[in-house]
Amino acid sequence: MLTFYFAPGTCARASLIALEESGLAFETKRLDFSRGEQRSADYLALNPKGRVPALGTDKGVISENPAILAYIAQIAPEARLAPLDDPFAFARMQAFNNYLSSTVHVNHAHGPRASRWSDDPEAQQTMKAKVRQTMTESFHLIEEQMFEGPWVMGSAYSVADPYLFTMFAWAEGDGVDIARLPKLTDHFARMRERPAVQRALAKEAA
Amino acid sequence: MLTFYFAPGTCARASLIALEESGLAFETKRLDFSRGEQRSADYLALNPKGRVPALGTDKGVISENPAILAYIAQIAPEARLAPLDDPFAFARMQAFNNYLSSTVHVNHAHGPRASRWSDDPEAQQTMKAKVRQTMTESFHLIEEQMFEGPWVMGSAYSVADPYLFTMFAWAEGDGVDIARLPKLTDHFARMRERPAVQRALAKEAA
Repeated sequence: MLTFYFAPGTCARASLIALEESGLAFETKRLDFSRGEQRSADYLALNPKGRVPALGTDKGVISENPAILAYIAQIAPEARLAPLDDPFAFARMQAFNNYLSSTVHVNHAHGPRASRWSDDPEAQQTMKAKVRQTMTESFHLIEEQMFEGPWVMGSAYSVADPYLFTMFAWAEGDGVDIARLPKLTDHFARMRERPAVQRALAKEAA
Repeated sequence: MLTFYFAPGTCARASLIALEESGLAFETKRLDFSRGEQRSADYLALNPKGRVPALGTDKGVISENPAILAYIAQIAPEARLAPLDDPFAFARMQAFNNYLSSTVHVNHAHGPRASRWSDDPEAQQTMKAKVRQTMTESFHLIEEQMFEGPWVMGSAYSVADPYLFTMFAWAEGDGVDIARLPKLTDHFARMRERPAVQRALAKEAA
């Protein structure tokens, strides 16, 4: 049995949607960040990083969205969530997902999580003030250079799609002018219509 | 033919070592960051991010270390650089590599690249001042929770090893007390003895 650890509104949404798309059986465990449950001894024993997402399997725990997303695609091949038989196409998908985790998510985190990288409150304010610029630059790079259409990697839906959907949900709140990003805005709207996405959002809201 | 784009002393070293380990034929193109070659029109046409590493293939360009590393392992299976037939073990390796790219490298970058996330010089100084702490925390997490030994993922060498070697080379310069990290220090010394690592370092120095 798979057990998925998540918190509402976090990047874990990407892997939650992928699980819903996969047809795999899984249960969810919600962590309450407002009570610091991600730092509890029980959770740190599962995931010493104290972050979400984490996926418990019969063999052990997997963390990090790009790793979990590829794993879900690999163990549910009939759901066709990644180009499993084409190493180049798989690498392109992994590169996209890695850009989201190591650049886009990091840019966003300088707003709510600036204290990770500076102890000085005034410095943190300057970091928050730059989030709009860095997120705008990242989403324009995706819109203009990386997004193939109609899905992230082209004609085939993949686990890159729920990950982009999850990151783009933060764009407006970060001050990005999404009217200048028509492809990503359209992608977001089409994603919201998918039953798997609606089931994932319902589990977050439950 | 594979063409590998790199700059000396950067995170591209990880994929350069993996290519040397793979037995694949490849050529290298060195970018001179001091002359801003990573921002040249020619290079941006290949990799719009303006970063290294990038791997040119007959099908197109792949960027991001975790994606390139997995690709090298997949197209050179006889080199046994990843657990290709075990999705769980592969995911654990990818999770490790993703932690290096999205957390460890990001922590380090707040020293030399603080201007990515704040325009204020005084704020940037507070960010540089915290690098020692964040890098120390990350390497202790790796030493105590993630590193299996004798190689990153256990008995089998994998592409996670050159990536850790590349990140750990930055530890002392970032103020980390490596004497308190005996497993990682020993790993670093054993990595330096590998002919593939020596060939990669020679190409950086050439």
